[in-house]
Amino acid sequence: MTRFVLAAGTTATATIDGISAAGADPDVMVHTPSADAEILEYGQPVRAPVTPVSPSGCPTPAVVTRAVRELLGFPTTVVDAGLAEPTAAGTVTVGATPGDDIRESEPVPTAHGAWAAARQFGRALPDDELLLAESVPGGTTTALGILTALGETRGVSSSLAENPLDLKESVVDGALAASDLNPGDCRDQPKRAVRRVGDPTAAVLGGLVAGALETDTAVTLAGGTQLVAVAAFARHAGIDGGLSLATTSFIADDPSVDLDAAAAAFDLDVTVTDPGFDRSHVAFERYLDGEAKEGVGMGGALALAERAGLPASDVRDRIIAVYDRLLAGEQA
Amino acid sequence: MTRFVLAAGTTATATIDGISAAGADPDVMVHTPSADAEILEYGQPVRAPVTPVSPSGCPTPAVVTRAVRELLGFPTTVVDAGLAEPTAAGTVTVGATPGDDIRESEPVPTAHGAWAAARQFGRALPDDELLLAESVPGGTTTALGILTALGETRGVSSSLAENPLDLKESVVDGALAASDLNPGDCRDQPKRAVRRVGDPTAAVLGGLVAGALETDTAVTLAGGTQLVAVAAFARHAGIDGGLSLATTSFIADDPSVDLDAAAAAFDLDVTVTDPGFDRSHVAFERYLDGEAKEGVGMGGALALAERAGLPASDVRDRIIAVYDRLLAGEQA
Repeated sequence: MTRFVLAAGTTATATIDGISAAGADPDVMVHTPSADAEILEYGQPVRAPVTPVSPSGCPTPAVVTRAVRELLGFPTTVVDAGLAEPTAAGTVTVGATPGDDIRESEPVPTAHGAWAAARQFGRALPDDELLLAESVPGGTTTALGILTALGETRGVSSSLAENPLDLKESVVDGALAASDLNPGDCRDQPKRAVRRVGDPTAAVLGGLVAGALETDTAVTLAGGTQLVAVAAFARHAGIDGGLSLATTSFIADDPSVDLDAAAAAFDLDVTVTDPGFDRSHVAFERYLDGEAKEGVGMGGALALAERAGLPASDVRDRIIAVYDRLLAGEQA
Repeated sequence: MTRFVLAAGTTATATIDGISAAGADPDVMVHTPSADAEILEYGQPVRAPVTPVSPSGCPTPAVVTRAVRELLGFPTTVVDAGLAEPTAAGTVTVGATPGDDIRESEPVPTAHGAWAAARQFGRALPDDELLLAESVPGGTTTALGILTALGETRGVSSSLAENPLDLKESVVDGALAASDLNPGDCRDQPKRAVRRVGDPTAAVLGGLVAGALETDTAVTLAGGTQLVAVAAFARHAGIDGGLSLATTSFIADDPSVDLDAAAAAFDLDVTVTDPGFDRSHVAFERYLDGEAKEGVGMGGALALAERAGLPASDVRDRIIAVYDRLLAGEQA
């Protein structure tokens, strides 16, 4: 049995102007992970007072994951990895709290405790395989922080069509300075990297990887550069078990990301799935234009669909159905 | 789409000697609802350090509900209705806290708030039908408290083969005295009844009923006399929408319970399902001998199985598989 586990959290880093597309403005964005969890569980927001569709019409990738879930019915678990707003999704508690701006000296004080609790949880889960996913606005910036502190020089993607890499690098420079760190100073100390310049979802996912691999549970990291940072976390923690990464063609085609290099550096078995989007629907068009790209395990869900032999057209039809339901709910 | 919602909680009432069979002793019993939620979600305890199988070999009814869930794949949601110990099941928060001994003056101080939050949640859920279930040790005693405070004179069942009715009545007498109430003093004030002499699961389930019916979601109360008390709660709250009750033949055959009278009093459409247990397995035998009888929505799950046309023998085979997995996990 394959279980899909979503680590949903927030950070003040996401509120830095221009960092994230995960929500139209900071007041909305803080609700996005809560809404994503609800879309995964119920197909639409329930308690979250937002509909995570960008002003241009780009839906949260939770819509894609939900669509595949409706077709395949895989079990899901949401871990509270620092939610700041209520969610109606059932959540597992591991002691994570919302992350602060990484330009503060200790933005993730719960990193060690959340890692330990998530590891115990990952050890105890009876499933054969875990797909590990994230929802955390600003997550590619905190991923860049983690990778830099670990001394890794991988690029990171963006939920925006125009990746604000200069801004991200400047934020990460400020983060390292605030923690009195140089690039590479947290080599082999991934929990320290997360505590100083990361976000709580990385601590939770790093713990889940550790616990799952200790008990011979197969692990697929379902996502883009944030999950590459989790892979880096695992390798810097000395974990040498097999790790897969399942992501979308939008990440594979992103010039900011070198997936092959990441796969080689962190010994990842990479699966890239192209959902075959065309210009027949605004949701597809926004992804073709470079928005969102990945998140909420979209690439992993698409890989599950392909593995199960679901026709891509069935997945696309269901994505439109979920999208239409979201917008209908917003108008209601 | 039919969703199964479990309200899982605890009370100090359950620790009164001789009240409940839901766990061998009070130290174990306080973990039972957390373990039940995990069995529902994962098929076995994950964080809970107990295996809810009685010394005689009687498994928690969560095993039956899980077995049906494995065959039908219906979506589930666990609401924290006053858990006292950690669970690895994802839980929805409505502000409920563990109940005190009903012989204290205000054993459920969170009753009104949890009711309101659960009502909002019930209103917002997009499902067509909800099956509402409980896991709360000592729940038939608190149900008797609620029914008595409402002025209803229904009998209550027991998870023990020998129903300690005299003990329950004496506890409820003490509860009414501690709250300075006479039978019927909370007529048409069900939240007050729960706050004074009930348990937090009743507040949560009462709120879910209210919210669901307000938005034309079909509601099936999945359980025995505790869900009859929830029906009484709804009627005393002035809710006159349609309500079904799905329970087991063990409750229907219990001389302490008059299901027909309850159905008439609270306008319930009652479905009784006989799982066809025989003496081929210790788990079945314990139920035939009068243990457990109902709980964790067992009767509702069996009704779903019957509605879906699942052969009862498939359900029984799966119950044995889940049971064997539980015991294997205990030995591991």
